[in-house]
Amino acid sequence: MSVEVIAIGTELLLGQIVNSNAAHIGERLAEAGLDHYRQSVVGDNEERMTAAILEASSRADAVIITGGLGPTKDDVTRQALAKAAGVSLVFDDEQAKRLRERWHRSGREMPESNLQQAERPEGAAFILNPKGTAPGIRIRIDRAEVFALPGVPAEMHWMLDNEVIPALAGEGSSVVKSRLLRSWGEPESAIGERLADLFDASANPTIAFLASGGEIKIRITAKAASIAEAETLIAPIEAEIRKRLGDRIFGSDDETVEVVVLDALAERGWTVGTAESATGGMVATRITSVPGASRAYRGSVVAYDTAVKESMLGVDSSLIAEHGVVSLPVAEAMAHGARRVLGADVVVAVTGSAGPDPLEQPLGTIVVAVATPEGMSSRSIRLPGDRERVRVFASTAALQWLRMSLQGVPWGSS
Amino acid sequence: MSVEVIAIGTELLLGQIVNSNAAHIGERLAEAGLDHYRQSVVGDNEERMTAAILEASSRADAVIITGGLGPTKDDVTRQALAKAAGVSLVFDDEQAKRLRERWHRSGREMPESNLQQAERPEGAAFILNPKGTAPGIRIRIDRAEVFALPGVPAEMHWMLDNEVIPALAGEGSSVVKSRLLRSWGEPESAIGERLADLFDASANPTIAFLASGGEIKIRITAKAASIAEAETLIAPIEAEIRKRLGDRIFGSDDETVEVVVLDALAERGWTVGTAESATGGMVATRITSVPGASRAYRGSVVAYDTAVKESMLGVDSSLIAEHGVVSLPVAEAMAHGARRVLGADVVVAVTGSAGPDPLEQPLGTIVVAVATPEGMSSRSIRLPGDRERVRVFASTAALQWLRMSLQGVPWGSS
Repeated sequence: MSVEVIAIGTELLLGQIVNSNAAHIGERLAEAGLDHYRQSVVGDNEERMTAAILEASSRADAVIITGGLGPTKDDVTRQALAKAAGVSLVFDDEQAKRLRERWHRSGREMPESNLQQAERPEGAAFILNPKGTAPGIRIRIDRAEVFALPGVPAEMHWMLDNEVIPALAGEGSSVVKSRLLRSWGEPESAIGERLADLFDASANPTIAFLASGGEIKIRITAKAASIAEAETLIAPIEAEIRKRLGDRIFGSDDETVEVVVLDALAERGWTVGTAESATGGMVATRITSVPGASRAYRGSVVAYDTAVKESMLGVDSSLIAEHGVVSLPVAEAMAHGARRVLGADVVVAVTGSAGPDPLEQPLGTIVVAVATPEGMSSRSIRLPGDRERVRVFASTAALQWLRMSLQGVPWGSS
Repeated sequence: MSVEVIAIGTELLLGQIVNSNAAHIGERLAEAGLDHYRQSVVGDNEERMTAAILEASSRADAVIITGGLGPTKDDVTRQALAKAAGVSLVFDDEQAKRLRERWHRSGREMPESNLQQAERPEGAAFILNPKGTAPGIRIRIDRAEVFALPGVPAEMHWMLDNEVIPALAGEGSSVVKSRLLRSWGEPESAIGERLADLFDASANPTIAFLASGGEIKIRITAKAASIAEAETLIAPIEAEIRKRLGDRIFGSDDETVEVVVLDALAERGWTVGTAESATGGMVATRITSVPGASRAYRGSVVAYDTAVKESMLGVDSSLIAEHGVVSLPVAEAMAHGARRVLGADVVVAVTGSAGPDPLEQPLGTIVVAVATPEGMSSRSIRLPGDRERVRVFASTAALQWLRMSLQGVPWGSS
């Protein structure tokens, strides 16, 4: 059972809205274990829409279409379906009655133009829409069962879950389950090399890599008759990947580095603070994005200006004169000072050169220091990319080294 | 000149990420006046990718592909391009040299698997990527000029703007020019009502509304034979909208509130600092995201814990006991204290209740105070939504009220 998705809407092609409908449908299809190999977007144009429907219907067992079922003149999905099926549009009295009743119940008068929502291709069935006025349409075209749904997300979601997925899942027989492993410390290509033979051998489960914000995610996806069976397929691959990557894996599924850091703090009963220069508050923002962060998080000194590093964090001006603000001794002095003024058990400090102009050190040089009741660690890293990328990657590095210090993982190991 | 877009990535089909790349490309193509009738998504599968490339190349004059150019084994866009073009992959020594140099400059050793990024279909040209390691590929297939770009947004955006659009736009015949007006202080529906007659009458230029992060953007888009003609069409509509919305318009095009704030500070010759509680560093992060922020920005005290508000900002404990931490007097005391300890001319302070649990005041209550050499203003606002939405909207409110204080615009007027 393979499914294609076609989203209708000129506003999608113009980039005025993002195609979140297709992403939602893709997620649901995966959860239901239905294969899904292609998505398309076409504008509100009858001819191009008809061509896209015919193509998809020749490739897939089912096609889900969203959009173009409204009451205005640019809504032509009904016409395109009829043309693709080689039939005429017929007026459905019962649907017209339902429309009039729905408008009447809402206390408004129905504009006559809405009656085009009572039209359907001959031989097609309506799909009821309790969330709005536009009904969906189900029709057989070529080898595919075609489901046309409104583009309004709340209406589409309901009809997908209650009408489309049950109709399709009955014909499928499997579920899909994914496990996400989060790694840090090695580039995607190096992780790929470590897992190359697993990747080559993988069919079910499959393995995929995704790089974002300085981290590499490894996704293991299994297909089976039940969730339990899928998990049984995933377990040995996950164990092997964990064995090979060791400390480089810091979390799975929803365990972001921020969550892992706060869990590790709770376990040790420690509070945390931050001292930031180049990242300008981003490390603080990321930690406090986690609900409940206030249980451990004390606060931050964003010492952007050098004078603030001295006055608020007590960094010695001679230290800055000797080593520069982008240096291990200054990062350590920032961590030390912030621990004292914030009254925090643990502090992560970040200084660096994020651009646009280099600050003492080459662009992208970032220095991180972590102070805990057990001692101080610090390290310098050189990050590629523009200002925003350097800031994001630097905040990730700061959070990762903080996490490793809390877990007793040596910084050098990954 | 018609263009199709193909996004590559199983994670798109699985709904793990939304196809924002296609939306971005669609927006750029529209701005350049290039027709764009179809988008597709296929997974990391060589056979299906090849089929999609051949189909698009038979319909369109140009095809833009994103994704699948990375260094791991699931990156097979290079192979699919070669197969679709009916040629072999060749190893490019010069590109291999560029890759090694890039890794060398960043002080890291290149994993051997990255060398697959030096492969290109025979007869294809590389598109340079100054933002990352994966080069793009340009090749003729069937009737179409095909451009393959990396899926990483920052890299793709740069290559699109600097390589692809210029190559295509030379062959177009009309241009599309947009003017973005940025407003704050009224909801989309109220702005829409003020501009309803302009919206109804609009054909060229068209008017569109976009709500994001608490701001309403109004986009005026004109299509004409030249940029100058398009600007002539836009000017009277822009003037009328500015007349009706007055102070609610705070910037146009790339003038974000952060940029406007830093410009206003430069004009007054003032430095700025921040004091944050509920927003946890987000206001600082936003200000320092602007290159050159260091000319005015001193730093921030993120006083997340109440004790830090007292110890670092000198907020009186009796004031907190009397009014609570989410109150006008405490916000003003935070601004006052931060001005002193940061040595800044101007400070914006934010405190509030962002959830998950209400803090003294109802969820979404945010208090902002702005202190300048000319005096103090403060105001409370109640924001809807979950924790992350409240934090984003609160940081926008703080930046907007800071901007209004600097420009001498009364807070009550919008």
